[in-house]
Amino acid sequence: MTGTGELVRLGRRTAKGVAGYDLAALLVGSEGTLGVITEVTVRLRPTRAPERTVAGYFDSIVDAGRAVDAVAAAGITPSALELIDRQCLLAVDAWKDMGLSVDANVVLLGRIDTPGSLGDDEAATMRTAFDKSGASWSAQSSDQAEADALFAARRLAYPALERLGPVLTEDICVPIRAVPEMLSRIESIATQWDTRIANIAHAGDGNLHPLLIAPHDDDAARQRAQAAFDDIIDAALNLGGTVSGEHGIGLLKMGGLVKELPPAVLDMPHNIKRALDPTNILNPGKVFSRTI
Amino acid sequence: MTGTGELVRLGRRTAKGVAGYDLAALLVGSEGTLGVITEVTVRLRPTRAPERTVAGYFDSIVDAGRAVDAVAAAGITPSALELIDRQCLLAVDAWKDMGLSVDANVVLLGRIDTPGSLGDDEAATMRTAFDKSGASWSAQSSDQAEADALFAARRLAYPALERLGPVLTEDICVPIRAVPEMLSRIESIATQWDTRIANIAHAGDGNLHPLLIAPHDDDAARQRAQAAFDDIIDAALNLGGTVSGEHGIGLLKMGGLVKELPPAVLDMPHNIKRALDPTNILNPGKVFSRTI
Repeated sequence: MTGTGELVRLGRRTAKGVAGYDLAALLVGSEGTLGVITEVTVRLRPTRAPERTVAGYFDSIVDAGRAVDAVAAAGITPSALELIDRQCLLAVDAWKDMGLSVDANVVLLGRIDTPGSLGDDEAATMRTAFDKSGASWSAQSSDQAEADALFAARRLAYPALERLGPVLTEDICVPIRAVPEMLSRIESIATQWDTRIANIAHAGDGNLHPLLIAPHDDDAARQRAQAAFDDIIDAALNLGGTVSGEHGIGLLKMGGLVKELPPAVLDMPHNIKRALDPTNILNPGKVFSRTI
Repeated sequence: MTGTGELVRLGRRTAKGVAGYDLAALLVGSEGTLGVITEVTVRLRPTRAPERTVAGYFDSIVDAGRAVDAVAAAGITPSALELIDRQCLLAVDAWKDMGLSVDANVVLLGRIDTPGSLGDDEAATMRTAFDKSGASWSAQSSDQAEADALFAARRLAYPALERLGPVLTEDICVPIRAVPEMLSRIESIATQWDTRIANIAHAGDGNLHPLLIAPHDDDAARQRAQAAFDDIIDAALNLGGTVSGEHGIGLLKMGGLVKELPPAVLDMPHNIKRALDPTNILNPGKVFSRTI
């Protein structure tokens, strides 16, 4: 539904198509500012081949970041490469007692969906990358139940942390080469602002989710957490990254968006917004801090 | 370079990113109407695994279309699935004497880049799909030189046809299920308008390139070819397809674009164009037949 009340269908039913501008791509991620999406049709793909899981334990988060860079440098594109840090492991254990924090400070979970012996080779290469980057332990899981349990711990990390207090969720994304440096800067920022920062990450994409615990009942701590949040954004931009890898801008990252995009680039979405929603009725006041 | 003379850099250097609208996606395929693209940075991917080539010969082009549908229905996503019809084979042989037209009326060339034994299975499944759809001959090429020669014939088809006269190149794309029906309709249209139409196709994508020979020196024949061209567009739209799978709109398909997109959808790119190029200096008069 457009800003002028027209019901339109965008996108295409064909595998390829270049008839005019890619309006579906423009609407995806526009956060309701260019139209109200009332119906979505998705393309189905064949089921993936069974995946291999490789786990690595690390003493330091920067070593785990180096392993992520080493995997990318080896030319492998994992179907998943997730990072869970000590704060998250402790929170999961405090809630579900999975015993992970006994053995590991930081866990990397990699998945390879390349089929056949090439997939075996890639899994072995990933494990080597983990070991060479200082893993204290690594293994390719031969047991699907075990592999699923590790990924379950990953999924539990966020709700486990929320039990500890209000969480300010970051969503930065940096070039993969910059992952170790970014993780190191997050550690420094946590120390500098005396703020508890846990990390979960879609590390293989360079998409990091530092989670800042900002207690309700402590105004000074909340302000320090906000300062740390802003510093993390500055560090990500400084390393060639973005303020949002997947969550979007909303209200929380409106300031970050202005830092990321130069004024001439910001003019373009502003002008598009004005063209497609002339009366500014579509999610007004979000994404763009400047008045449309 | 924008319509207001600003030099901007769009896109992102990170694997993921959702900071504002996807302006790079909007500019890609905008055919110079939203900005002048002065520099492009592309992402590199690892080299693909070696591919398997499966060739099939068919007596009728509609059977070859059925084979394309059968491959998709089997859940396979080939890295290439190309069709070359009798007119093209004759033209290539007339030029390069490759001897293809002796054995085949229509050739399908499939490639599978799935590695390992799964790739072997998919190549075998593709060959079975060819056979069940009425292939007069099929084989998985064990010889890379032979496979490359077949694809060379595919690449020669267009210049070979151009030797026969001016070619009006179609670029329709239909849902894969509709490929056999579309090929059948093209045959009927050729007969109806007494126009020589050759077919090459990225058939696995449903992207067909009917090539209409429109002789310079025969006005009546040129007019019939134009009528056939328009009928092919109508048939593609009727089957849920698009007027352009990959070539774009330019001048040739401006009428087709208006047929494909309803007025409310056409309003959107018009308004975007006006917003980003207020003085209409960027490739004016192309893509959109309506005055901006």
